[in-house]
Amino acid sequence: MNELEVIRGIKKAFDRPFPGVIRGIGDDCAVVRIGGKTVLVTTDALLEGVHFLPQTMPPYPLGRKALAVNLSDIAAMGGEPLFAFLTLGLPKPVPRGFLSSFLKGFKKEADRFKVALLGGDTLFSPGGISIGITLVGLASRHIPYRSRARAGDRIFVSGFLGDSAAGLELLKREGGQKIKIPREIRTVLIKAHQLPEPRLSLGRFLVRRRYVRAMIDLSDGLASDLRQICQASGVGARLDLARLPLSAALLKTAAALERDPFGLALQGGEDYQLLFTVPKTNAALMEKAAWTALRQKLFDIGEIIPGRKIYLGTPHAVEELRVYGYDHFQSH
Amino acid sequence: MNELEVIRGIKKAFDRPFPGVIRGIGDDCAVVRIGGKTVLVTTDALLEGVHFLPQTMPPYPLGRKALAVNLSDIAAMGGEPLFAFLTLGLPKPVPRGFLSSFLKGFKKEADRFKVALLGGDTLFSPGGISIGITLVGLASRHIPYRSRARAGDRIFVSGFLGDSAAGLELLKREGGQKIKIPREIRTVLIKAHQLPEPRLSLGRFLVRRRYVRAMIDLSDGLASDLRQICQASGVGARLDLARLPLSAALLKTAAALERDPFGLALQGGEDYQLLFTVPKTNAALMEKAAWTALRQKLFDIGEIIPGRKIYLGTPHAVEELRVYGYDHFQSH
Repeated sequence: MNELEVIRGIKKAFDRPFPGVIRGIGDDCAVVRIGGKTVLVTTDALLEGVHFLPQTMPPYPLGRKALAVNLSDIAAMGGEPLFAFLTLGLPKPVPRGFLSSFLKGFKKEADRFKVALLGGDTLFSPGGISIGITLVGLASRHIPYRSRARAGDRIFVSGFLGDSAAGLELLKREGGQKIKIPREIRTVLIKAHQLPEPRLSLGRFLVRRRYVRAMIDLSDGLASDLRQICQASGVGARLDLARLPLSAALLKTAAALERDPFGLALQGGEDYQLLFTVPKTNAALMEKAAWTALRQKLFDIGEIIPGRKIYLGTPHAVEELRVYGYDHFQSH
Repeated sequence: MNELEVIRGIKKAFDRPFPGVIRGIGDDCAVVRIGGKTVLVTTDALLEGVHFLPQTMPPYPLGRKALAVNLSDIAAMGGEPLFAFLTLGLPKPVPRGFLSSFLKGFKKEADRFKVALLGGDTLFSPGGISIGITLVGLASRHIPYRSRARAGDRIFVSGFLGDSAAGLELLKREGGQKIKIPREIRTVLIKAHQLPEPRLSLGRFLVRRRYVRAMIDLSDGLASDLRQICQASGVGARLDLARLPLSAALLKTAAALERDPFGLALQGGEDYQLLFTVPKTNAALMEKAAWTALRQKLFDIGEIIPGRKIYLGTPHAVEELRVYGYDHFQSH
């Protein structure tokens, strides 16, 4: 049984109308009505050995990132975060200094975005550190569900792709064989992996101005997350390889690592940029407004097309894009 | 570092007023205001090997109990459950048949109490099955915080104590040395352990009629949970051993197991009865009303007293009650 079948089993068992429920399983957040407000709820878990390793995620950035990836789900709905709940599973004895550093990181990120920690649970976890977070927020009036993309929309991304995957590669190789990369580049890429920036103001801006149709945050990788939009919307897509925003840091590091930078950009996860579709007629206006209001450059990387397939256009040919996104229940 | 220190560390780092937050960490649920409604949120995790063993909790009752223990937290606040979020960590490969049985149980309990499952996450869990649930509900206008007990209040419990602990003992010994106990008794006690009944209607009844001051659900055991009320309220208590409601099934089984039935009743956890304090002048009225409206017998087991200590009155003496409640971060 793979992860998709597991999720389908859950979804099927519970898929029916329910008073107050606008959207259940299947988007970045669930959407419910409570007392006249539209409320977003997202929940995510991070497990040691599955989502992170102690040598790649020290406690302080782990605390920040654990909250940041949930904030990113709220950003992808154009929402505003309010309250968080934390469940911490810790091995026995608790690793020395872990808790204070982790909480310092968690608190830093909570303070940056005015999120209150309201509760949680601590428990003994024999399998290593586990972190469960539930985040509650408020939605904007217009919600950019994954299912709203239409053929003809332009596909945009909010920033560099692949930096996080390259940073993770560097972290994994530390202590082993030295790779010659300038310190500034190493710092930038490791930061992209350890301290992703939840794009909350950008998400709100795009949604409140009604520029976007469908939006998702890039957690599993561009190929995998774009497929989510396409499947939910019943459309295909064509990405233009030459337009993918790659940083100079990524290009240099990929060369030193002998890795394909486009592979890292397309299949590497955890960039936590926003990926969204925009009606063609809105695109130029949106790009200009995002620059004026937020000094934010947006990258037009392709187009939503009829059909179900995702194509990748290179300077030489067009081919179907494969997805190597991570599936927790497939061995590979 | 023990669990209490861990929780204190978290609480201290986040303890400050926050707009919309009525009660943060420290009660059965967090309490927030959203759009004019008072909303309860509770989150709990169950880990294989820590909170349950496969041989004592098959998938179907596990699915029901996982939701029931969260419903019990809402019951302890006198609230009404609305939406649930489920995070399932599963080993690889997923144990055959686990998911469909677990979900069948979860859905049964959700349907019984009209709870919608709105989302969640599935992930690979190398340390065994892990279940994280977040439950959102609506509060009544009057909320029976743990901190509201006052000296002079009578202490009540909603049903038998120790049955769940006795059921767990029987399950643990299955396959091993046979204990001679009638099948009906075995069934009753195992059901008390595997399928605890969340006392939602009783919780709402007690709170809406304003009978109770402080309330908690019995998850860690009477001694431990009463201490929570006493510590939060800055009071002591005196329990009357002779008044503890023990079932005939518990008495017979304790004898066969050569265990002290009062030990199971005081220190055994997971009864999921409601424990609450009631102003003396309300007590008789409440007992009568609960019987008339719900055919529910309530058991007066002692009194809240000044001071900080909890005493246990036996027919022969009064002694201070020790707490053997489970602490995840202490070795014992």
